[in-house]
Amino acid sequence: MIPPGVSASDFSQALKRFREAVGDEWVFEGEDADLYRDAYTPLWGEPEEKRASAAVAPDRVEQVQQIVRIANAYRIPLYTISTGRNLAYGGSAPVYSGSVVLDLKRMDRIIEVSERNAYALVEPGVSYFDLYRYIRDRKLKVWIDCPDPGWGSPVGNALDHGAGFTPLPFRDHFDAHCGMEVVLANGEIVRTGMGALPAARTWQQFKYGIGPYVDGLFSQSNLGIVTKMGFWLYPQPEAFRAGTVTVPRHDDIVPLVDILASLMYAGIVNCQLGIASPVFNGPPSAAVDALLSKPAGATAAEWDRYAQSKGLRFWQTELHFYGPERLIDAQWSYVKERFAAIAGAEFQDGASYRFPLTDEQISRVGDRAPLGIPSLGIFAGLLPESGEPPSTGHMDFSPVLPMTGEAVLEAHKVFTRAFREQAIQPNYGIVQSFHWRSFILFYGFPVTHDIETNKKIRATYGRMIRLAADHGWGVYRTHAVFMDAALDTYSYNDHALHRLHETLKDAMDPHGILSAGRYGIWPKHLRGAKS
Amino acid sequence: MIPPGVSASDFSQALKRFREAVGDEWVFEGEDADLYRDAYTPLWGEPEEKRASAAVAPDRVEQVQQIVRIANAYRIPLYTISTGRNLAYGGSAPVYSGSVVLDLKRMDRIIEVSERNAYALVEPGVSYFDLYRYIRDRKLKVWIDCPDPGWGSPVGNALDHGAGFTPLPFRDHFDAHCGMEVVLANGEIVRTGMGALPAARTWQQFKYGIGPYVDGLFSQSNLGIVTKMGFWLYPQPEAFRAGTVTVPRHDDIVPLVDILASLMYAGIVNCQLGIASPVFNGPPSAAVDALLSKPAGATAAEWDRYAQSKGLRFWQTELHFYGPERLIDAQWSYVKERFAAIAGAEFQDGASYRFPLTDEQISRVGDRAPLGIPSLGIFAGLLPESGEPPSTGHMDFSPVLPMTGEAVLEAHKVFTRAFREQAIQPNYGIVQSFHWRSFILFYGFPVTHDIETNKKIRATYGRMIRLAADHGWGVYRTHAVFMDAALDTYSYNDHALHRLHETLKDAMDPHGILSAGRYGIWPKHLRGAKS
Repeated sequence: MIPPGVSASDFSQALKRFREAVGDEWVFEGEDADLYRDAYTPLWGEPEEKRASAAVAPDRVEQVQQIVRIANAYRIPLYTISTGRNLAYGGSAPVYSGSVVLDLKRMDRIIEVSERNAYALVEPGVSYFDLYRYIRDRKLKVWIDCPDPGWGSPVGNALDHGAGFTPLPFRDHFDAHCGMEVVLANGEIVRTGMGALPAARTWQQFKYGIGPYVDGLFSQSNLGIVTKMGFWLYPQPEAFRAGTVTVPRHDDIVPLVDILASLMYAGIVNCQLGIASPVFNGPPSAAVDALLSKPAGATAAEWDRYAQSKGLRFWQTELHFYGPERLIDAQWSYVKERFAAIAGAEFQDGASYRFPLTDEQISRVGDRAPLGIPSLGIFAGLLPESGEPPSTGHMDFSPVLPMTGEAVLEAHKVFTRAFREQAIQPNYGIVQSFHWRSFILFYGFPVTHDIETNKKIRATYGRMIRLAADHGWGVYRTHAVFMDAALDTYSYNDHALHRLHETLKDAMDPHGILSAGRYGIWPKHLRGAKS
Repeated sequence: MIPPGVSASDFSQALKRFREAVGDEWVFEGEDADLYRDAYTPLWGEPEEKRASAAVAPDRVEQVQQIVRIANAYRIPLYTISTGRNLAYGGSAPVYSGSVVLDLKRMDRIIEVSERNAYALVEPGVSYFDLYRYIRDRKLKVWIDCPDPGWGSPVGNALDHGAGFTPLPFRDHFDAHCGMEVVLANGEIVRTGMGALPAARTWQQFKYGIGPYVDGLFSQSNLGIVTKMGFWLYPQPEAFRAGTVTVPRHDDIVPLVDILASLMYAGIVNCQLGIASPVFNGPPSAAVDALLSKPAGATAAEWDRYAQSKGLRFWQTELHFYGPERLIDAQWSYVKERFAAIAGAEFQDGASYRFPLTDEQISRVGDRAPLGIPSLGIFAGLLPESGEPPSTGHMDFSPVLPMTGEAVLEAHKVFTRAFREQAIQPNYGIVQSFHWRSFILFYGFPVTHDIETNKKIRATYGRMIRLAADHGWGVYRTHAVFMDAALDTYSYNDHALHRLHETLKDAMDPHGILSAGRYGIWPKHLRGAKS
């Protein structure tokens, strides 16, 4: 395979020069390049599957600069990955098939961890496991925040607007970053924020620097290659406690969310772990199906009767508190008082810990991400359920909702109906608040290695993106195969924002060598083909 | 006065077309344009003073688009202001003398205030007073955050990275924004974040949207004209209490800041109101001067002896707590326990309030900004002290420091010495934490209407910027006259970040009509002249 539009001799020449830059053993072709396939792609085995033509793995920033310069000379499309674990969103495969994967896994230096000022500066190949072990080995009293699972890259995850499970702002990984080093498409190294000051002493402590704040340009985009990135760490809290709030009735979601929102807006709750419904998110039920099938939807009274008949409480939300024991006890007690305004609200104390934990204590923790401990435990939960076609992975469909109960009810209704119209058994979305002021509603879409099944799944996923947008709920992130479709819904004023992205792309990467197609941004010479 | 490089006939033609666009009465020339002079400029009355050639005040976004298109046709340099109250940083005068001020004061619509989801969407001409009154008149239970003084614009202040006095994140005005509408130099309207979704329902609730997050480009820059901007509001807290921590000795600043920093990094303290020293920030003293004059600096023991002899405690910091009474009492009690690790630490309870306050109660509040109430009270404190030349205003010199006591001591020493070398009586900086992870050290520089005095002040200010940068402390914001000098210190890799700014400028504003020179970004045709 060679990149489209590149001659065989140019490609071979470019690979030769890549080898000279990084060493023979760090340029991959043929079967070795196949290892960059996205195991979770909904295009598995189809001609349109996005494949790497080759891969190149530099060890340091000067080699990244050399690669970029070579790519410019031969017009080689590159596709940057950090650890390549962006599963459910495209993994390590390029968006533009035939690109050469620029694999930054060897750039795995932990440049600094400051316990005193609670930050880290890392390269893109550093994984959550690496950073966690570094900190634990040195007994530093700071926490990282990691997503499920923990083998990904803090840099890569933050740049894709990923999230984790400790308190805000740490769980919003892009928000918790401070300072970047970026190799631009022209091969120049830029440091952002205070990093632009040669003697900088607050590169990881003050985000803005002076002048335009450009960091956001390098997230969910293809405008540069981030080679270093700073993150704020959470000073090890004294204690943790979990608490669950349940409310009995269907319509209780409205005051439940209003109270939750006001607590989050005020910063009193900074870690909310999903709103779920034992009715909707429980095991399949014919009675639930029957209610869902009602043309106008079931009434609240009908839902309440059903829930009561099964002894189910309608909604529940789990809250996590971190800090000095006395403060988190006061918070939980205050929070309970606020939610008690809902008739029938009930409260359950969950796990509680005091830190640090010993290795033995950690081994007994089931869900480690809320304690900033990376694991691969999530994979145990992804085994296919009996009777379904075996899935090989999943894609997340993740629209952003306002923090109101009405929005949650409406979105559930809209998406359930759409799933039924596509003759797909609806799995109910989980409402998460990875951000201070909005919900993300997560639906998992299984993907398989069966072409016909995947076709149906793709059609439904595409339809869902448009349906969500029609209701004002844009997706915050999407699988590589759907980036054009997702960006296409952000179309205000004849796609003015997208056209601005293209203006930036043309100015910053005139030959279009960086990660063509990522988040819908194509270089000029490929735009015609797309539209 | 006509803009440099523009012919008299083109200028007159452009003004004619501006009048057609906005109405005769909203284009200002001659004496009327003089009203845009910066009363606080250190170039007052000198040939280099930055002056407007004219001003144009549109009423709505379509008029802004028209003005931009006319400016492109005739190559008229525009300079955008919101309410024009950016005093100490350039006021309403352009950076590039001869520009036409694009005055957005008439665009003063409060488009939405959501009490339920605690946000506001406003135009640039809305002032803090306007927004406060709107909320108070409707008895909405949300707070704004305002700087001193309150006649400025939430939009303008946030875009200049301004700050206020209620808890973080609200006091960091750019961080508390969510969603923008921007008129680009090509006259196109772009909405950022979720605003790019035509049916958007979370424009003011989810910042990123999808794809590159571009909002930062429009802060401290000249890459677009922000015509709407969303802000997160603080749900009215139940109560407020202030507490002061004092420590006795010079070197106590080190543990004082370490404890404060860890409390802020953990989010337990979210409103710190400056670290000051009764020794340094007090009235002039010959004994203090003598100690400061020691070539190697006075020792800690010498300072301690002096402070003891005067009965002064060396350092103090004021903390503000907002929230349910029970929680803020628990916070203050916990905070006292932590600071009590410093031998001799003492604590004083300050003001406390329960909300809402009546008008009568508000009238008795001295310092209103911490309660989110705008005022002009700050001006009462700016009268010249006897014996000094009458100042007409001031510029802020504001380097960013790491949150360590050592950095505070070192910066004080370095700047004091520099003030003395310039034969200027040092006024001691106040350490503020308007941000989660860094201090800003504020020095007020008086400016006068006396040319000789101003010359000396300018020389010192310029020297201070370079001196700060040499020590790794970049300034976070600066007066229009010093933007080139400030940006020049952010020079990593041969000014790579600044060159990126220029690449963006050329792509987004090819004729260079928007706010030339703002934060050191000049259009191509003016770059030669500058360097």
